[in-house]
Amino acid sequence: MEVTKKRILLKDYVVGPPKEADMVASTETVRLEVPVGSKGVLLKNLYLSCDPYMRNRMNRPLEGQEETYFTPFKPGSVITGLGVARIVDSGHPDFKVGDYVWGSTGWEEFTLISNPETLFKIKYTDVPLSYYTGLLGMPGLTAYAGFYEICSPKKGEYVYISAASGAVGQIVGQYAKLLGCYVVGSAGSNEKVNLLKTKFGFDDAFNYKEEHDLAAALKRHFPEGIDIYFENVGGAMLDAVLLNMRNHGRIAVCGLISQYNLEKPEGVHNLFCLITKRIRMQGFIVIDFYNRYDEFVETTRQYIKEGKISYVEDVVEGLESAPAALVGLFTGRNVGKQVVVVARE
Amino acid sequence: MEVTKKRILLKDYVVGPPKEADMVASTETVRLEVPVGSKGVLLKNLYLSCDPYMRNRMNRPLEGQEETYFTPFKPGSVITGLGVARIVDSGHPDFKVGDYVWGSTGWEEFTLISNPETLFKIKYTDVPLSYYTGLLGMPGLTAYAGFYEICSPKKGEYVYISAASGAVGQIVGQYAKLLGCYVVGSAGSNEKVNLLKTKFGFDDAFNYKEEHDLAAALKRHFPEGIDIYFENVGGAMLDAVLLNMRNHGRIAVCGLISQYNLEKPEGVHNLFCLITKRIRMQGFIVIDFYNRYDEFVETTRQYIKEGKISYVEDVVEGLESAPAALVGLFTGRNVGKQVVVVARE
Repeated sequence: MEVTKKRILLKDYVVGPPKEADMVASTETVRLEVPVGSKGVLLKNLYLSCDPYMRNRMNRPLEGQEETYFTPFKPGSVITGLGVARIVDSGHPDFKVGDYVWGSTGWEEFTLISNPETLFKIKYTDVPLSYYTGLLGMPGLTAYAGFYEICSPKKGEYVYISAASGAVGQIVGQYAKLLGCYVVGSAGSNEKVNLLKTKFGFDDAFNYKEEHDLAAALKRHFPEGIDIYFENVGGAMLDAVLLNMRNHGRIAVCGLISQYNLEKPEGVHNLFCLITKRIRMQGFIVIDFYNRYDEFVETTRQYIKEGKISYVEDVVEGLESAPAALVGLFTGRNVGKQVVVVARE
Repeated sequence: MEVTKKRILLKDYVVGPPKEADMVASTETVRLEVPVGSKGVLLKNLYLSCDPYMRNRMNRPLEGQEETYFTPFKPGSVITGLGVARIVDSGHPDFKVGDYVWGSTGWEEFTLISNPETLFKIKYTDVPLSYYTGLLGMPGLTAYAGFYEICSPKKGEYVYISAASGAVGQIVGQYAKLLGCYVVGSAGSNEKVNLLKTKFGFDDAFNYKEEHDLAAALKRHFPEGIDIYFENVGGAMLDAVLLNMRNHGRIAVCGLISQYNLEKPEGVHNLFCLITKRIRMQGFIVIDFYNRYDEFVETTRQYIKEGKISYVEDVVEGLESAPAALVGLFTGRNVGKQVVVVARE
């Protein structure tokens, strides 16, 4: 069967803040079957995930740049990202028509995946399927690995999280509370700050846009200093945090969203604190922890069942809303995890 | 017995590069005895150590700054630092007249130490006593802990060391070679570069002052990238290194000498590499490893005996030479560990 599918293409490499006009909707006629003899699967995309790292994939490739997680998109080609999908045709013995999966897919209605081993099968459908773009997907595993592995947390420690109401931050904060840490988050609106304090149970939260002196704000919230900083933003915030870290503190570098639209990143000036305070600062990428996905899902699903974890999504309808939703991540328009509904089943 | 002792005072807090004139020679009359009833010891200072961290102690204290390893000197007071000394009077049962020790002392001929527990007894005198300001003292233990503990090194890894002919760098490089790593160092003169290649057995070395593009120089020396960077300098060098690190690389932040004379440190712009390459960057201070001093001395002394470690000191004579020697660290005048001889026994 042939259908006309909608898709979102990258127009050209992006310089500076991304705009909706950097992406363009288009259509393509495709057969709703995997090619004969292929071990691929055909996905019907249901929920698409908007994630900050996607901005980096819109940059012009650097000379000699290796193929990585951050390999740039190609102008004129469909944007790819993570999503939740249902299998509508399969040439692979491990994937059946009707199975739900999440993983790398296209910003389009149907996507042919030639190497379905890269997809994660969705085992539990007693939670909203969209959660597999967030709480039970890549951002959730990022929070899990980043907090439990990279931060080396201990009960009673002081934890600070920037971009704390975002997909990863909200989950990190709740894991930290469950461990018995003191948790403060920052976000860019009073609505988000309220969410942190009421919905997610943070001990405290502040709106960084209302602070002229970030170091002083942190000093106020952490008079005894910060043991763990879960870094999502970079730049001036990181400099302020370095001044407020405690001895033997840990900084998990998950993202630097404040820097992604700059042609040259801001300089970070207070690295001397790494020495005086014996700080460990460590970057990580979730794909290194994909082998722990099952353990993560079991743990987190249990927390959900017991009502110990809350989760907030910002859901927009329709593939055509996807460009604006992605752009909104960089202006802080989203409240919670940004999801695009392509189809509900 | 009363004597007139020479001493070096800090004149005033220092802004920018330190100058000889920031320090002043003076004399003081003292009794060569510990006070009656005191558990202190009186040191005759033999060898004084010039170390980069001392520059930080010349800064005006920050408001609310805690007492630390980096607590500023007081203008008008004697400069303190590490040194090797002989005990000439003692009120402490564990320290006898004639014992040799190393530890924190004054830049003066005699120093009364009221809490001698802070001193390290020198067990082996079959090596030059001055080595306890370097190879067998604080810089040596810094190299030992920094390399073996903070860098998590493995045989065959690619190791880069900046300020590589300095007190710490030369030792780190030799430990790395003994473990079977590939080791490249940088220094600021061709004389030092030759020393790295001939005397210390580095695989290669370069003069950073002759490179316009540090990132390109590193790419040339490490076409496959750097696993371990032992950071002594900071600033532009760190930015260039970040671009050349391999996945899962480690950066041990030991010092940032290029930044110590700046009122505002340079910005470091390439921290995004911490994420894409999953880099662990960790600051440390040697005092956290003082409990491993005995183990370090036994290991390193064995290497010395077997001829497996070479060591180069830059020795100047006389306490009055100390200010110029300290200032010279920041212009790279010293070749090897900078030592000041106050007396030879």
